[in-house]
Amino acid sequence: MLGHNMPYSVPTLETNLENNLLLQALYGQELSRPPVWMMRQAGRYLPEYMVLRRKYDFFTRCKTPELVCEITLQPVDIIGVDAAILFSDILVVPQAMGLEVLMEENKGPLLPNPIQTAADFSRIVVPDVHDRLHYVMDAIRVTKKALHYSVPLIGFAGAPFTLLCYMVQGKGTKTFDAAKSFCFTQPLLAHQLLQMITDTTIQYLLAQAAAGADVVQLFDSWSGLLSPNDFETFALPYIQQIVQAVKPYCPIIVFAKGSWYALEDIAKTGAAVAVDWCVQPTFARQLVGAETTLQGNFDPAKLLMHPKEIRTEVHKMIREFGVQKYIANLGHGITPNVPVDNARAFVDAVKEFSE
Amino acid sequence: MLGHNMPYSVPTLETNLENNLLLQALYGQELSRPPVWMMRQAGRYLPEYMVLRRKYDFFTRCKTPELVCEITLQPVDIIGVDAAILFSDILVVPQAMGLEVLMEENKGPLLPNPIQTAADFSRIVVPDVHDRLHYVMDAIRVTKKALHYSVPLIGFAGAPFTLLCYMVQGKGTKTFDAAKSFCFTQPLLAHQLLQMITDTTIQYLLAQAAAGADVVQLFDSWSGLLSPNDFETFALPYIQQIVQAVKPYCPIIVFAKGSWYALEDIAKTGAAVAVDWCVQPTFARQLVGAETTLQGNFDPAKLLMHPKEIRTEVHKMIREFGVQKYIANLGHGITPNVPVDNARAFVDAVKEFSE
Repeated sequence: MLGHNMPYSVPTLETNLENNLLLQALYGQELSRPPVWMMRQAGRYLPEYMVLRRKYDFFTRCKTPELVCEITLQPVDIIGVDAAILFSDILVVPQAMGLEVLMEENKGPLLPNPIQTAADFSRIVVPDVHDRLHYVMDAIRVTKKALHYSVPLIGFAGAPFTLLCYMVQGKGTKTFDAAKSFCFTQPLLAHQLLQMITDTTIQYLLAQAAAGADVVQLFDSWSGLLSPNDFETFALPYIQQIVQAVKPYCPIIVFAKGSWYALEDIAKTGAAVAVDWCVQPTFARQLVGAETTLQGNFDPAKLLMHPKEIRTEVHKMIREFGVQKYIANLGHGITPNVPVDNARAFVDAVKEFSE
Repeated sequence: MLGHNMPYSVPTLETNLENNLLLQALYGQELSRPPVWMMRQAGRYLPEYMVLRRKYDFFTRCKTPELVCEITLQPVDIIGVDAAILFSDILVVPQAMGLEVLMEENKGPLLPNPIQTAADFSRIVVPDVHDRLHYVMDAIRVTKKALHYSVPLIGFAGAPFTLLCYMVQGKGTKTFDAAKSFCFTQPLLAHQLLQMITDTTIQYLLAQAAAGADVVQLFDSWSGLLSPNDFETFALPYIQQIVQAVKPYCPIIVFAKGSWYALEDIAKTGAAVAVDWCVQPTFARQLVGAETTLQGNFDPAKLLMHPKEIRTEVHKMIREFGVQKYIANLGHGITPNVPVDNARAFVDAVKEFSE
């Protein structure tokens, strides 16, 4: 296993993984069915997760490698997904940069002292991620070991614009209007902040890859609040930098939720592209071209349908995307009210698909 | 003025309005600059509104014609918009249908007994709107009189899918997943409810037109949570029915926020089409064709920019949409934190535009 002083390895398909479907799809290898995983698959819909959630607070769960490992493996064991995604949160990065982040259960995140003026920059840094986020890399090493080369492990980070949203607004909202106004009225400061987040994130994702993450995903959860022009200004350049820096060492998937207008530009960065359910599969393919691997886009609200109907809908989705260069997933995180059997029905439907 | 037993009048441009720009834009007449109004222009950014808000609770403000009139006229007098939009709320319709609707200031709506099963339908009806919503029509008559034929008065209603969201979910959320799951798991009930809302809304908008509304707008605020296929199933057919029934008597604008994928279909209903800022003006025009009047799409977060910059951005927007068959507006409601001078700068920028 690579320590943090070791050189990063160049990604290759020559792995020891028993189930390598995710990497094969990302490398464009021909497959008989797509790989499947679910955003937030290690989460509240699982009774086994709820047990740990009642016992340990959020940051204890995030910062204890053994707990991260246990939570990360739960959906692999219970639901049978083709990849594990590290249990963590995108807000560990603002926290590592120096901002206080409070996470109250059922209330969402609170950053009591957000970034609002130039003076606030004295409170943040581009940290050494091996120092400030060592617990994530530790968790990756523990989890990789526990996975026994069964399925790949996905690491992740929030994209710079989405992290700026929280770092400026200080909490989640429907519109992040204060964060957006910060970009529009103080663009130089916004770009300074976005660059600091970008520099941190590049280090962070490379460290995740070096620690053993087989794939990473970049979540731009709020980029859909930007107009196409503003996405080009405040989101895309930083996504580009990250993909350019990380992709030589680790396959990367970009999910810019709601930013259908940017799919072509995101694909041009060289990343795989995740889409939500508001984009029709054929339209997504048309926008990203033949070479890009797509991921998505089942509406999580449909996971409350009868398992039989879930199966029908999943097969319809796969036929629309096509089996090749495609990763079956949701178009947003699974919600806590989904019965475990229904989540399993989603995964099983993908596994039993044949053309 | 028409009483509710009078036949509806066929819309015509032969009005006595001093400022008739909005109707001219909707009828495709050649103009030297577009008309301008703002969604939520009668709202919390206005100190004069806040005075009344502190004095009277929400439904008192909605149900007292003199208060509705005063609030509706405020932005016409203070900001100088080219149209008044009636102060009201889309949830007066679920209330008229029989559901309890609570509106707590700063908390959003709460419907304590939402629709969840077939049995819940015994609690709702398609009401006689002249009976249950007479206060809206009274308010329109009072407001029209007070406007002295200065500018047109816009009436409005929530679109059926958006009202279903509240009637089933019981409150506002980011994802309305319970409401969507209701549609996906009990489609027959969902269509029954959507049809009841549609029947009520058609009556309601025709009554608004008969009472004096010069134009009406249909708000599908949450349709963007639906996939293109689900929009076609649960939103479009009801929008079509409403436009078909109302348009012969009153020009109608449809705003399906987030549903860029449906712009072509909405335009085909014959309505004018409002768009948010995630759709580029040239793309919107391409989708709706040459005959449709477009409305939109300034990002309200940009109203916190310096008035000089607002002016630059507004002129850029108008050049992109073009002056003809276009109504300048925001892409979402104005937020409470916008200084009045900035709102005025938005309106002034449109008024001083010349090619």
